[in-house]
Amino acid sequence: MKTRAAVAFEAKKPLEIVELDLEGPKAGEVLIEIMATGICHTDAYTLDGFDSEGIFPSVLGHEGAGIVREVGAGVTSVKPGDHVIPLYTPECRQCKSCLSGKTNLCTAIRATQGKGLMPDGTTRFSYRGQPIFHYMGCSTFSNFTVLPEIAVAKIREDAPFQTSCYIGCGVTTGVGAVVNTAKVQVGETVVVFGLGGIGLNVIQGARLAGAGQIIGIDVNPDREAWGRKFGMTQFLNTKGMSREQIVAKVVELTDGGADYSFDATGNTEVMRTALECCHRGWGESIIIGVAEAGKEIATRPFQLVTGRVWKGTAFGGAKGRTDVPKIVDWYMNGKIAIDPMITHVLTLEEINKGFDLMHAGESIRSVVVY
Amino acid sequence: MKTRAAVAFEAKKPLEIVELDLEGPKAGEVLIEIMATGICHTDAYTLDGFDSEGIFPSVLGHEGAGIVREVGAGVTSVKPGDHVIPLYTPECRQCKSCLSGKTNLCTAIRATQGKGLMPDGTTRFSYRGQPIFHYMGCSTFSNFTVLPEIAVAKIREDAPFQTSCYIGCGVTTGVGAVVNTAKVQVGETVVVFGLGGIGLNVIQGARLAGAGQIIGIDVNPDREAWGRKFGMTQFLNTKGMSREQIVAKVVELTDGGADYSFDATGNTEVMRTALECCHRGWGESIIIGVAEAGKEIATRPFQLVTGRVWKGTAFGGAKGRTDVPKIVDWYMNGKIAIDPMITHVLTLEEINKGFDLMHAGESIRSVVVY
Repeated sequence: MKTRAAVAFEAKKPLEIVELDLEGPKAGEVLIEIMATGICHTDAYTLDGFDSEGIFPSVLGHEGAGIVREVGAGVTSVKPGDHVIPLYTPECRQCKSCLSGKTNLCTAIRATQGKGLMPDGTTRFSYRGQPIFHYMGCSTFSNFTVLPEIAVAKIREDAPFQTSCYIGCGVTTGVGAVVNTAKVQVGETVVVFGLGGIGLNVIQGARLAGAGQIIGIDVNPDREAWGRKFGMTQFLNTKGMSREQIVAKVVELTDGGADYSFDATGNTEVMRTALECCHRGWGESIIIGVAEAGKEIATRPFQLVTGRVWKGTAFGGAKGRTDVPKIVDWYMNGKIAIDPMITHVLTLEEINKGFDLMHAGESIRSVVVY
Repeated sequence: MKTRAAVAFEAKKPLEIVELDLEGPKAGEVLIEIMATGICHTDAYTLDGFDSEGIFPSVLGHEGAGIVREVGAGVTSVKPGDHVIPLYTPECRQCKSCLSGKTNLCTAIRATQGKGLMPDGTTRFSYRGQPIFHYMGCSTFSNFTVLPEIAVAKIREDAPFQTSCYIGCGVTTGVGAVVNTAKVQVGETVVVFGLGGIGLNVIQGARLAGAGQIIGIDVNPDREAWGRKFGMTQFLNTKGMSREQIVAKVVELTDGGADYSFDATGNTEVMRTALECCHRGWGESIIIGVAEAGKEIATRPFQLVTGRVWKGTAFGGAKGRTDVPKIVDWYMNGKIAIDPMITHVLTLEEINKGFDLMHAGESIRSVVVY
């Protein structure tokens, strides 16, 4: 079949809207009509050539929502007509990682997914006879895409695609970091570095968990109003402040340090600050942001020996098929908000504008509606 | 009163055995006759001038066992005749840290202890009219010493001083890192870097917890026999191996990486290796060793984002007054061994020999018996 798609033919070039050939689903795979897709920093990170493992030409996009249109042999968990969210972190429920109960990092299709291929080692997309690679196992910048069954979460049919697509990455990453990774409890103190699309979801995750104090940190004063909208109780503009000054200020505001801090910037120096502003004895810092290739985090080991814990999270620690439908419920039940975060709605033809808005810091989230 | 003591008059000089003046216990304090004391790397670290906050002249030593001889006003938890272990990490049961239930890092007397003083801001030791400072709140290199009541753990009277003094630091630090900090469970995989006095206790802690695989790592082949004596199941001599090689080898031996790794070397490069050899998704690395002043740990944040956790531990996460008596029980009941680790027994006059043996790597633990 044919599908319209925004293709990344090479790094550092705008996406091109073209018509691709798409093979139907093989055994264990499903064909999905993507109804809406968010544009995430990770797409930009790859498109801008920062990801040393980026593969081109490819169909980017990993934050979508759509409808199953066809299933391959042996597929039992979804059927045509089901509403789904594609999962860049699948959940096979069979591998060592899934069975451990300790992590969401399913390894069933990791090797091929990292190479831009389906589990059988081939691509479903092609353009003028040349293969086009998949991206993060999703490729939601195509109107139709093929995914393994283990990489789709079935969701309720009354959830709007235009907003619930955001649960495919940003919402789950931020809210899940609080709920699944940190496991913040009622009354605890949370500090969030970076009030973009992820950081705001950390804030509303902290509000959902009943955190007693939610401090948002950014160098852009415009983000204060955004943070307060989702539950932030205090704002700290750290422009021009040294690491030591930021740590001292957070320790003062929190009477000793944060119970939990989150880095949603991807800046390794901020990650260090986030760790060091945690409370001695028990504070935990969670890295969410993706750092530039080759960058390292550092601190004195004394920070850990005196009880701080350094962790990270991917896809908010969420087991996709199990947890994503729950987060959709939270959204539909009003426990979390998404609508105000969708600042721009674009057509596929306008997709490059979405990247421009992100780079200019003008959008929280731009969504393409097919 | 008078007491014999080994005094560190200045850094990088041998200790001198002299007779000091000792003031009796003030309110909330106890006078202890030290019966035996271990010589620990931390004493050497301070004596050798590596600790930028080291204070001289002082009475070092923090790993002792003894008998309460006199108590100050208001002391209720111990009485003359009680056998006790001094605690460099006190347990006041009143401060924010103690009440949190999340840490053993009591802060009640931290400020004065760090300055070599008793809680009232003075010292009990003096020599020819000049004050001599306390060390880690213990000063067990003196036959008699004064401690705050909150810094002594009462232990059973049938425990021999010569071996149970080691519970005052090394045993609790190693065993506690496994039991309290990592909380290793039956069947899990443990990797220990550095098979000295702490590492061997990590090994026997892992055995006590029922670990399924206990891999010991050192560059000294003589340590293999030591490790096996306490429960190590595999030995890896990493002399000449790069970090990548060590990680690959541990991943191979453990089918994916360690559930828990422990650094008992104090070397920041080893700390990184210990983290990176942990299992993707859930492996936790615990820093026990004290690094040289100014040294930093580093890694790519990707290591954490993919599920590894970086932690540290001090005094094995043990709440001294509560947990130390239990560890003494474990020793007396044969759950853990100490006797084989006490490789040298010295008189106070021979104490400098104990430091020499440690520096030469010839001892696991030297103990001074008064």
